[in-house]
Amino acid sequence: MNALHIDWQPDKTLALPVYQQITDYFQRAIASGDWPMGAKIPSQRKLAAQFGVNRSTLITALDELVAVGLITSTPGSGMTVSGNHWSSLLAEHVNWAQYVQAGQFKPNSHAIQKINQFETDDVIRLSTGEPAPDQFPRALFQKAFDHLGQNLTSLNYTEPAGILALRQQIARHLAKVGIHTSADNILITSGSLQALQLVSMSLFPKDATIYTEAPTYVKSLHVFQSAHTHLAGVPMDNQGMAYWQLTPPAKDSHAIMYTIPTFNNPTGIVMSAERRQQVLAYAQDHRIPILEDAAYQDVWFDQQPPQPLKALDETGNVIYFGSISKSLAPGLRIGWTVATKPVIDRLTDVRMQTDYGASSLSQLVLAKILADPEYDTYQAHFREVLSHKAEAAQVILHRYWDDFATWDAPQGGFYLWVRLADRINIQKLFDLATAQNVLFNPGSIYDFQPNQYIRLSFSYESTERFEQGIRILTSLIKENF
Amino acid sequence: MNALHIDWQPDKTLALPVYQQITDYFQRAIASGDWPMGAKIPSQRKLAAQFGVNRSTLITALDELVAVGLITSTPGSGMTVSGNHWSSLLAEHVNWAQYVQAGQFKPNSHAIQKINQFETDDVIRLSTGEPAPDQFPRALFQKAFDHLGQNLTSLNYTEPAGILALRQQIARHLAKVGIHTSADNILITSGSLQALQLVSMSLFPKDATIYTEAPTYVKSLHVFQSAHTHLAGVPMDNQGMAYWQLTPPAKDSHAIMYTIPTFNNPTGIVMSAERRQQVLAYAQDHRIPILEDAAYQDVWFDQQPPQPLKALDETGNVIYFGSISKSLAPGLRIGWTVATKPVIDRLTDVRMQTDYGASSLSQLVLAKILADPEYDTYQAHFREVLSHKAEAAQVILHRYWDDFATWDAPQGGFYLWVRLADRINIQKLFDLATAQNVLFNPGSIYDFQPNQYIRLSFSYESTERFEQGIRILTSLIKENF
Ligand SMILES: Cc1ncc(COP(=O)(O)O)c(C=O)c1O
Ligand SMILES: Cc1ncc(COP(=O)(O)O)c(C=O)c1O
Repeated sequence: MNALHIDWQPDKTLALPVYQQITDYFQRAIASGDWPMGAKIPSQRKLAAQFGVNRSTLITALDELVAVGLITSTPGSGMTVSGNHWSSLLAEHVNWAQYVQAGQFKPNSHAIQKINQFETDDVIRLSTGEPAPDQFPRALFQKAFDHLGQNLTSLNYTEPAGILALRQQIARHLAKVGIHTSADNILITSGSLQALQLVSMSLFPKDATIYTEAPTYVKSLHVFQSAHTHLAGVPMDNQGMAYWQLTPPAKDSHAIMYTIPTFNNPTGIVMSAERRQQVLAYAQDHRIPILEDAAYQDVWFDQQPPQPLKALDETGNVIYFGSISKSLAPGLRIGWTVATKPVIDRLTDVRMQTDYGASSLSQLVLAKILADPEYDTYQAHFREVLSHKAEAAQVILHRYWDDFATWDAPQGGFYLWVRLADRINIQKLFDLATAQNVLFNPGSIYDFQPNQYIRLSFSYESTERFEQGIRILTSLIKENF
Repeated sequence: MNALHIDWQPDKTLALPVYQQITDYFQRAIASGDWPMGAKIPSQRKLAAQFGVNRSTLITALDELVAVGLITSTPGSGMTVSGNHWSSLLAEHVNWAQYVQAGQFKPNSHAIQKINQFETDDVIRLSTGEPAPDQFPRALFQKAFDHLGQNLTSLNYTEPAGILALRQQIARHLAKVGIHTSADNILITSGSLQALQLVSMSLFPKDATIYTEAPTYVKSLHVFQSAHTHLAGVPMDNQGMAYWQLTPPAKDSHAIMYTIPTFNNPTGIVMSAERRQQVLAYAQDHRIPILEDAAYQDVWFDQQPPQPLKALDETGNVIYFGSISKSLAPGLRIGWTVATKPVIDRLTDVRMQTDYGASSLSQLVLAKILADPEYDTYQAHFREVLSHKAEAAQVILHRYWDDFATWDAPQGGFYLWVRLADRINIQKLFDLATAQNVLFNPGSIYDFQPNQYIRLSFSYESTERFEQGIRILTSLIKENF
């Protein structure tokens, strides 16, 4: 076999070390199937010349590739692509089109893989949808840990639907927003994302259409699309989903609605109380079950948002998803699903076959914290700080970006949804910003078509770091567009 | 519409309260689609007569059914099956045959649903594959909680593959059994079951054949079967999988091997060192990637088992699954997968789209405990107690069951795999035992054909309770078979 042909070079202007760019390149080439197993890799001399790097950098990269098993080095006959059978299965899978029928899972978009990978490094994270570390209520946790340290007598698998004490606390918590339910109608999941995944595995009929706001959080993942369904984007106005603009489902075809009515991710739009009634009635008329994603329910600024759809739902047509990730701690990985008993039972059964339940430790700690009378005090303070950060972020944007950016003031949530002037190429800005250690989310990953938006999180970073990030972006915009 | 026809009656000899048998019956009838939405339910008078129960019992049941939204009560026109659209989707789904093509998830077997449901009640659990609560090392946990209470500064999403400190501890832990790997080749999952689920979503080609020991743990779930694959059982001898008896995969068809070489669940068989080499070579020759499930790796009695397949694997052909569930605490929900980098990256990417990672809290606590020098002391003690319980359980079985049961002495793990005399109807024994609050696992749920085995766990219950359970089973066997 002839040696592989290579016409790629590392980009020395990037922050990512050159040797790592090389290992990434090899990995992509092998995983994509471009380089079949057994293929001969050019000599070190040729590779160094092609890549324009010195021998020692190249050897660092090759050593790592050998160590992780991607390439095999045989004295005498040089290096070849390793012959392990998983790599070869993998190679076929990355060719998604071939496997779409098998319901296998799609890889994440390039921008998101990059964000996932970089978010752990020392970068300014205007991308991160998490509470700021300095808002972490350590005292509340410490109390819960102390209690457990003294009282825990085992840590075994829990009841299939989740620990009863936690489900009871959640039921109490939900009553405050008008959802009157009982522990029996609640399933605890590993974050609300897992609940979406369970629903799509357990309840979506093949070829169903999922109506959803455009843009929407779920477009940025493949949690629904990998289940043989079609996402259909529905436009929004400032009252929420413009449901009358959706093409009604054909008779005998299955349709489901997924909505984030409260502080939509990414736009921040809140569906009005009136629109909620209309959407419910429309869905009822057209026999469309509703998935209500309420991840941001508790992070309002001055005024509580309208009641959830689930609070208005009299027929059991709405499945409601809550999460502790946005108001307390995503690392607990706790979410809750509220639905009729048969739906809860079906989801519970499937979850018992896929991971046996969420961490008992997380569940016990959260049950304790939700039962603590100081939790409400913490929440009020958390919201106040968040709302100040939202204001401060907008003051900063006005200072630097008024010439080329517009946005609506959010009433809750973590994000500013910012429209940039048409001359600014957002993909290019994203790449330039990443190289300068500033991360934001391009709006297109949430949308059904390209757009001129970016999503900026004001929640995670301090206001100082937010400003620092905006200053870097401002220079990049002024220099390049 | 005429009222529904009902010819079922509650079984008053069961421990399950009659009103609950009624709600279960309604639920099954509705979820199965037998009772379409809008269907009219007979009057209370007729129902009470049909069921042979008094009015107040019936009303308790009906109230609950109304509360969970399964039936609707309209003054004047009586009760009807609720018209929520999820129930109707669900009803279609329970007809699995219709949806097999969509890759949707199958419901659990009846016996397992029953076990899942009953295990939380006050029954003698000879079914439970968990460490005994009285072996729980509270002091180790308390130290970890104290540390976290004082030092935790946030609890956010973690690195996509899991917290680095934990992956490093796992790598160190694995070196002790001969697997030399690094944090980069490890993915932390929510228990090892989630890892199996991720692999089946991410790496299994459509229509692949999965070779596995018969009987096997994975036959009792649908984690593999729901991904369009065929499980093919391979017989075992006392050295492990008799791989030469498997029909080699057809050319161009995909085949994968799943094995539990160490303390196979349910049989307890350990694959010998020699067989491990042979299986690896066979798989290599036939281009069959291997999944090695090592959930019971650390729970040996007198002698460490042979090295894992992964320790012998030079080509990256083996994916190894470890778990903390059997040697410390299943409630942490922590497992680890060891594989080549491209495989780890692919699994990590899919897991980021399905649940954003395992509980950070569980990960931090486990990293701390594994780093504690006292962990090894705990482990040694844990194994010693477990091995004594295994012996005691066998003394008890010999005392009561020598006339009609045989088994091999296990060298590790949690289970006795017991063959009962042919005259004993195991399904009937299971139902009788459940009614007497004793749970065991019928062997057939693990097998590819009916068998005369049951799986008894000696791990979870105390030896006293084990004996009590065996005494109840003995009476049932003597009276009924
Ligand atoms: C709208 C929405 N739903 C669900 C989630 C999932 O969060 P978790 O799985 O942590 O509950 C997110 C997180 O970003 C979100 O923005
Ligand atoms: C062989 C085997 N593998 C995997 C598991 C899953 O355990 P966990 O998800 O808790 O790691 C079990 C649990 O019973 C098991 O017996």
